[in-house]
Amino acid sequence: MKDIIVQKFGGTSVADTDKIKNVAKAVIKEKNLGHSVVVVVSAMGHTTDMLVKLAKEISPNPSSREMDMLLSTGEGVSIALLAMALQAQGCNAVSMNAMQVGIFTEKIHSKARILEIKTDRIIQHLENDEVVVIAGFQGITEDMEITTLGRGGSDTSAVALAGALGAKRCDIYTDVEGVYTTDPRIVPCASKLKEISYEEMMELAYGGANVLHPRAVETAMKYNAPVRVRSTFKTDDLGTLILGADKMELQKPVTGVASDLSGLRIVVCDVQDNPGTAASLFDGLAAENISVDMIIQSYARKDLNTNDIAFTIDRGDVKKAMAVIEKIKPDLNYSAVYVDDEIAKISIVGAGMIGRPGIAAKMFRTLANIGINIKMIATSEIKVSCLVDKDRANDAVEALHTVFGLDSDQIADVKGDLPNI
Amino acid sequence: MKDIIVQKFGGTSVADTDKIKNVAKAVIKEKNLGHSVVVVVSAMGHTTDMLVKLAKEISPNPSSREMDMLLSTGEGVSIALLAMALQAQGCNAVSMNAMQVGIFTEKIHSKARILEIKTDRIIQHLENDEVVVIAGFQGITEDMEITTLGRGGSDTSAVALAGALGAKRCDIYTDVEGVYTTDPRIVPCASKLKEISYEEMMELAYGGANVLHPRAVETAMKYNAPVRVRSTFKTDDLGTLILGADKMELQKPVTGVASDLSGLRIVVCDVQDNPGTAASLFDGLAAENISVDMIIQSYARKDLNTNDIAFTIDRGDVKKAMAVIEKIKPDLNYSAVYVDDEIAKISIVGAGMIGRPGIAAKMFRTLANIGINIKMIATSEIKVSCLVDKDRANDAVEALHTVFGLDSDQIADVKGDLPNI
Repeated sequence: MKDIIVQKFGGTSVADTDKIKNVAKAVIKEKNLGHSVVVVVSAMGHTTDMLVKLAKEISPNPSSREMDMLLSTGEGVSIALLAMALQAQGCNAVSMNAMQVGIFTEKIHSKARILEIKTDRIIQHLENDEVVVIAGFQGITEDMEITTLGRGGSDTSAVALAGALGAKRCDIYTDVEGVYTTDPRIVPCASKLKEISYEEMMELAYGGANVLHPRAVETAMKYNAPVRVRSTFKTDDLGTLILGADKMELQKPVTGVASDLSGLRIVVCDVQDNPGTAASLFDGLAAENISVDMIIQSYARKDLNTNDIAFTIDRGDVKKAMAVIEKIKPDLNYSAVYVDDEIAKISIVGAGMIGRPGIAAKMFRTLANIGINIKMIATSEIKVSCLVDKDRANDAVEALHTVFGLDSDQIADVKGDLPNI
Repeated sequence: MKDIIVQKFGGTSVADTDKIKNVAKAVIKEKNLGHSVVVVVSAMGHTTDMLVKLAKEISPNPSSREMDMLLSTGEGVSIALLAMALQAQGCNAVSMNAMQVGIFTEKIHSKARILEIKTDRIIQHLENDEVVVIAGFQGITEDMEITTLGRGGSDTSAVALAGALGAKRCDIYTDVEGVYTTDPRIVPCASKLKEISYEEMMELAYGGANVLHPRAVETAMKYNAPVRVRSTFKTDDLGTLILGADKMELQKPVTGVASDLSGLRIVVCDVQDNPGTAASLFDGLAAENISVDMIIQSYARKDLNTNDIAFTIDRGDVKKAMAVIEKIKPDLNYSAVYVDDEIAKISIVGAGMIGRPGIAAKMFRTLANIGINIKMIATSEIKVSCLVDKDRANDAVEALHTVFGLDSDQIADVKGDLPNI
């Protein structure tokens, strides 16, 4: 059996019939390299927005089961059209939806996780020399309910299929050329990474790099499936390869710098310092499905035996969070609540910082040197994040990018040096 | 268990979100009468045309398998939106596609016939007091391939579901108020029939009445399922009930008059009168999937031992038919071929003509009296069809409608006399 390549094309790549014909060319090119090809596609262009609009016209709060039924039709259109385009260019092809493949998920609508993928039907088609075009974003439960995978769903479908099929590689075609050391729109001398580990990619993704959804990276890591992020428009460019850290040669302590403006900070002042106060706060937030990112508890008023508790959440959750805090006021007995939405989270990420002391200190010193105050700090094994004023975010990213040697003129051109996975 | 009513709404009834909300009201009204309700819907308005256009942009001749994958998405949208509209109006509802229900068909794309319908999931939802909204027009094969049922597919889905579920009635909501004695656009005094038998309805449908597709009528007859054709816009009107002839009280020999302009006539002249010549002609046409309607073979030139063979086909098939005739010229050895596309087929239909002699003669005499020449004649047990000049078609329909006592001023108002099935 030939090596299998999974290719994924997003909504903008299949936005109209001319673009679909171009995608067909890219698929055939890969097939002509001697591979079996599985293609995962999203819904065409603005189809999903259009369907959501129709649903909102019908109901302010449509059930998530029916939303999944509705949205899954979008990929139904794009897979059929791409299969037709491949056939029109002389390539055997067959489209399959999640039910036909057997992409089984949890029974949770609008953000289900994939549990199992059946591969027998896909393999059979590949053995018939057919390209298999599969609907991304959608799944089914064991009792035949249609689910969707939520944001980044088609990326996750593609990576999970690559894992289940034991694919040689999963190519995520997108409108960027790969993963950069930081956002090139902020730092023009950002450099494209030839490779990055799953762990670094996840930290960068959660830190605000929108190239690949964290859940897709997590899925790739689980299956140890090599993923290439590459450009739909420059198919000759190899993009960035995401793979296991064990397969990488570590060179620099820091791989990338990320800036995230999506959060805001809530400070609850003078909370009674009793056992369980923090728990009751964060239990309350969790019950409302609010994800908390950074948390700091500080002894603000030791004489009064009270703490300040500060944490960051997605700014979309602020109303729900304030309602929770109001509700548990009798338990917490706080004096005041402040909301600070003028913040940015700046992160440096690098598997190479493990076992190299001083990286965090160097970050703090760099920010201090340009007069940036650090409001909160959080660290993981391969990441250090600082909360700073929003209007200094770009200054912080630029300075860190230079200090850690990531500017494009600081990086040697290693084109072609890497294994062509 | 409550009585089950199956309702079917076509594309124009669900063309936009306001219309879908109105359909939801009609569904809830039926449910509030104490019934379990199953609703079958088509794709919204011009969705199918739009999808076909996309396919044609991709490929001049897209594969029928992928066309079925593509077109089946249309009903996926309308079922989800109708379920949402029902929920928004406080009615429990769930949408299901053909795969989820288990509507099994032959493995023939674009015009599959239904083989079996699983009812267990539907029944389970009905027992949960949910309205079940089912995608019409689509089916699946036992190996999970998606099929479509062709023209009139949603009507057929609805009637077959009614049969499989043992429904009390299947209501086909449409833009006409019922089945008329003839086309009211041609004969203003056409009257709406309170009831009509399956057999009469089929003959009328094949004869050109476009209210309900013959295949849907055939399916209803197979299951002996009572079908009501009624208006989407006048839901208080009972429309026309289609049911078994055994349940009807026959009153008039002729139930309706139909006019069909869709055909044309081909005459093959001076064919050698050998055994097998007709067979080789009609075998050739069948091999090209050309349906032949009326056939006449006449001894035109007895002295030369040759026949004329005349037959009618759908005008869309004329090119293919002429190619067949050209190809078998060596076998048939004919002298000339004429195509006559200025024809109309006029039919009188009525289960009441069985056992009543003279009906056909009365038809011929009526046409002769107004100077209409009859080019061909065909009869069945409950139908007599005559081929006439196209420009006299309306005159023929009007005269026959009056002669057989079908004008509205000739029919007593029997409103409310019929059993309320």
